[in-house]
Amino acid sequence: MNEADQRATTPGESDERYQEGVVDLLAALAYGELSAFDRLAEDARTAPTLTGRAALSSMAAAEIGHFRMLQQALADRGVAVEEAMQPFAQPFDEFNASTAPHSWLESLVKAYVGDGLAADFYREVAEWLDADTRELVLAVLADTGHSAFAEREVQGACADDRSLRDKLTLWGRRLLGEAITQAQHVVVERDALAELIIKGSGDLTGVGAMFRRLQNNHTKRMGNLGLG
Amino acid sequence: MNEADQRATTPGESDERYQEGVVDLLAALAYGELSAFDRLAEDARTAPTLTGRAALSSMAAAEIGHFRMLQQALADRGVAVEEAMQPFAQPFDEFNASTAPHSWLESLVKAYVGDGLAADFYREVAEWLDADTRELVLAVLADTGHSAFAEREVQGACADDRSLRDKLTLWGRRLLGEAITQAQHVVVERDALAELIIKGSGDLTGVGAMFRRLQNNHTKRMGNLGLG
Repeated sequence: MNEADQRATTPGESDERYQEGVVDLLAALAYGELSAFDRLAEDARTAPTLTGRAALSSMAAAEIGHFRMLQQALADRGVAVEEAMQPFAQPFDEFNASTAPHSWLESLVKAYVGDGLAADFYREVAEWLDADTRELVLAVLADTGHSAFAEREVQGACADDRSLRDKLTLWGRRLLGEAITQAQHVVVERDALAELIIKGSGDLTGVGAMFRRLQNNHTKRMGNLGLG
Repeated sequence: MNEADQRATTPGESDERYQEGVVDLLAALAYGELSAFDRLAEDARTAPTLTGRAALSSMAAAEIGHFRMLQQALADRGVAVEEAMQPFAQPFDEFNASTAPHSWLESLVKAYVGDGLAADFYREVAEWLDADTRELVLAVLADTGHSAFAEREVQGACADDRSLRDKLTLWGRRLLGEAITQAQHVVVERDALAELIIKGSGDLTGVGAMFRRLQNNHTKRMGNLGLG
């Protein structure tokens, strides 16, 4: 089968390798939701007001709603979410450990930038999936209200503070770098997932183009926060 | 109005003092849900398995579902939940600070015993409320699945470990003592809530009888964990 034929292939349930890649994708998403829950719950604890605390707690709860959808989708495929998530725990945890925020605003930027990058990536991948899986992936990417909240808080805090703005801009760049590093670790370890991405992008040039789109969107996103 | 007449009074929307007590009650419940969310999210982080982590995160999310019902009920009464909760933050936080668990099992016992005591108390109070408020209170007390989970884990861990069982039994007694101390602080500070309780119980003798029922249920609950 030549490359053009590969690209034309519509994924089907019969394709075992494709199914393996999909399970990886859903499991990575699921661990991402658990991580997001954890991070938002932690941020809720340090929120400067009870209003902020209630808002962030509600967003955290919404992530768990997404997690349960993924858990169900994996169960429908005969896969236990806990086992499927195991390979993704380390890279996600390392990303979080290497980018532990030192302030409420760093937390907000991290959640905004991290969720945005992840959502862009999964949305690209969703295009190559069968209709049911695509619908599920897009549903769990639905913003839980965090974005508008973060934009308001960060813009407000930076409006009259140039040095804070510069500091948070550097923070955003560092987050992008660490995210790419950990994403590469994942792809190297998970063959079926890597194939899904390469096949979907067309070829390695296509993968490169996708990464540039992710970086461009990251820059726009920093702009939305009033940074960069 | 003599005491017998007071007891016979059915609370109505026109009774301002009653409404004030109800707002306090709903606000205390709401802060309790936020605290429970926080505690469960923290416990999820230290869960020994991904299964435990997912289970506790889901329970935490369910608490937020309850919180939002209370937030809505207060909004319907023209009250912002954030403001109404303020007076209850300190006693709840002091209870939590004075009973910080040192292990996964202490966390589970604390959640089980604390939620059980709170639920018993609110269920008693619910009996004296107008039908709509009673229904709301009973709905937000619905167990989020934590109890069965805690019973399994604690019974399993203590089955062959007498010294652990003794240690957790003492822990349960301390929790009861601290809970009563903080409950007293709340009641002393919140006149309308105190009136609601005294009027509902009939008189101070009735309040005493209610406290004995709470203590008896606590003892039974410790038995369910295989402790006491």
